[in-house]
Amino acid sequence: MKAVSIKQPGEAEQMEIQERDKPIPKVGELLVEVRTAALNRTDIVTRSNPNLSEPYPILGVEIAGVVVENRGNGEKYKTGTRVAGLVNQGGYAEYAILPANRAILLPESMSFEQGAAIPEVFLTAYQTLYWLGELKTAETVLIHAGASGVGTAAIQMAKHLTQARVIVTAGSAEKLAVCQTLGADKTINYKEENFAEEVLDYTDQAGVDVILDFIGASYWENNLKSIKKDGRWVLIGTLGGATVKEVDLSALLAKRVTLKGTLLTPRSDEYKAKLTQEFVKVVLPYFKRETIHPIIDTTFQLEEVVQAHQYMEDNKNIGKIILKVRA
Amino acid sequence: MKAVSIKQPGEAEQMEIQERDKPIPKVGELLVEVRTAALNRTDIVTRSNPNLSEPYPILGVEIAGVVVENRGNGEKYKTGTRVAGLVNQGGYAEYAILPANRAILLPESMSFEQGAAIPEVFLTAYQTLYWLGELKTAETVLIHAGASGVGTAAIQMAKHLTQARVIVTAGSAEKLAVCQTLGADKTINYKEENFAEEVLDYTDQAGVDVILDFIGASYWENNLKSIKKDGRWVLIGTLGGATVKEVDLSALLAKRVTLKGTLLTPRSDEYKAKLTQEFVKVVLPYFKRETIHPIIDTTFQLEEVVQAHQYMEDNKNIGKIILKVRA
Repeated sequence: MKAVSIKQPGEAEQMEIQERDKPIPKVGELLVEVRTAALNRTDIVTRSNPNLSEPYPILGVEIAGVVVENRGNGEKYKTGTRVAGLVNQGGYAEYAILPANRAILLPESMSFEQGAAIPEVFLTAYQTLYWLGELKTAETVLIHAGASGVGTAAIQMAKHLTQARVIVTAGSAEKLAVCQTLGADKTINYKEENFAEEVLDYTDQAGVDVILDFIGASYWENNLKSIKKDGRWVLIGTLGGATVKEVDLSALLAKRVTLKGTLLTPRSDEYKAKLTQEFVKVVLPYFKRETIHPIIDTTFQLEEVVQAHQYMEDNKNIGKIILKVRA
Repeated sequence: MKAVSIKQPGEAEQMEIQERDKPIPKVGELLVEVRTAALNRTDIVTRSNPNLSEPYPILGVEIAGVVVENRGNGEKYKTGTRVAGLVNQGGYAEYAILPANRAILLPESMSFEQGAAIPEVFLTAYQTLYWLGELKTAETVLIHAGASGVGTAAIQMAKHLTQARVIVTAGSAEKLAVCQTLGADKTINYKEENFAEEVLDYTDQAGVDVILDFIGASYWENNLKSIKKDGRWVLIGTLGGATVKEVDLSALLAKRVTLKGTLLTPRSDEYKAKLTQEFVKVVLPYFKRETIHPIIDTTFQLEEVVQAHQYMEDNKNIGKIILKVRA
């Protein structure tokens, strides 16, 4: 089968389509004929990891497609079923292995492009908003990088699942407009405004209950100012650097902040299965009713994978970047 | 009535016994004839607070004594009942107001000295181990300042309530011996050993599930090394400084650490009531069976309050320092 791997660890240009063996599912797994895969920043990390040795892995952690082999998972996943889900690796390929307990049955109304745009960002947003951030009905949440994949998923769920007051930051008027369309109550252009001042002003100095923080070091001080007493601050990325100078622990104590670091990709299979199952139960009905939508920026052909990665690295996308693996 | 307040904010010598009005309980409150009060570090903070203005508060946040007036709280707290509990202020006095929903009924077998030694340290230890640290049966916990009031309470509860594996740090052989007597499985003299190395060695490199951290900045790096993936790190003090020079957020992310800052004293009345009620239900039976003990270092007379504070500031006590308010 065709599959995307690398010549050697490095830049996007190191990726190429190679001929690989079709994977063989074990009991509990589905073999999926992949129609679409979606890009994730973790694919860049994998692609550039200098510690990799040959044979290099097939890239990609989420797919949508059709079940072609079902190793003992019952009628629900019979051959021909349309599914999406998180795979451990090997997503950018004609076939991939999806554990059945992580499969999301795609509603009839959704395309494979939309399907591949769901798992990573919606599961991450769900996990961080609800499992880690413990966002409750009508609380206030600050979502940084509002126009990112996780951001667009988080805005929609926070609004529709818990009627939260949603404040977002992003770096362009276009991105902020999209956030507003998705339901954000207050949008802040971090390039033009001090977001902590805006947050405190908007919340009558109270601050926010939950922060989804992809940025890390460069936002540390302003996040600390923006968070309410007993707030939950979920750290899911360090796009703004990982090293904070001069951290004042007494502020964390006085505000009784809960700071949780997390990454979805390295979680256990069991964790991902449990998360997927709760997500399917709680959120899939909103997709069926078309209240919540996967947000897609651009679809590339598998052959354009290098350009697709470069596009992701340019940071200009609003929503997901999809690879079309086959027609 | 006699009550301890200050001449002006400052050192221990500023404290003196003054004549004050006996407080008047409101509905939901108990007027308690105080027999004993216990010292807490928060009393030092209050005593030295330069922002205080006259009339200066009566110091003290925990007491044991006898109910002398009950404003509508039923038979359970009738006149003559022996109680202990957290008061909002005014503990170092002949009478104090105790909200009935924060009263702990003292078992017959316990003295007033023992009673006053319970609330702050046991409620703090319970809250941090279980509500915040989410310590589960047979997990491993690292308790810093093991011979402190909260430390001695935490060791006993972790062992008896959840059969945890308990690792403690302290600064002298005498303190470590006490920790061992209370049930600590592994004791580390932080002055002689690198505690992170000892912890990793003792846990086969796995680290600990929960850290109770009173120390803060100076232990930051070693705590980060000592904590297990998905560990909960509860920050309840900054005896070792509040400013961490450099924090590496990527380590918090990779280990998926939950860091929770907390202080018990500024919590809401409702929170303290809920905590007290759960504590009474879960832990009081262990006091009655004498499986768990309040740990008392020294008892001072009310007139010796200055010396008692100086003794606390010398940091040599193992367990609580008690003020005997009346015979």
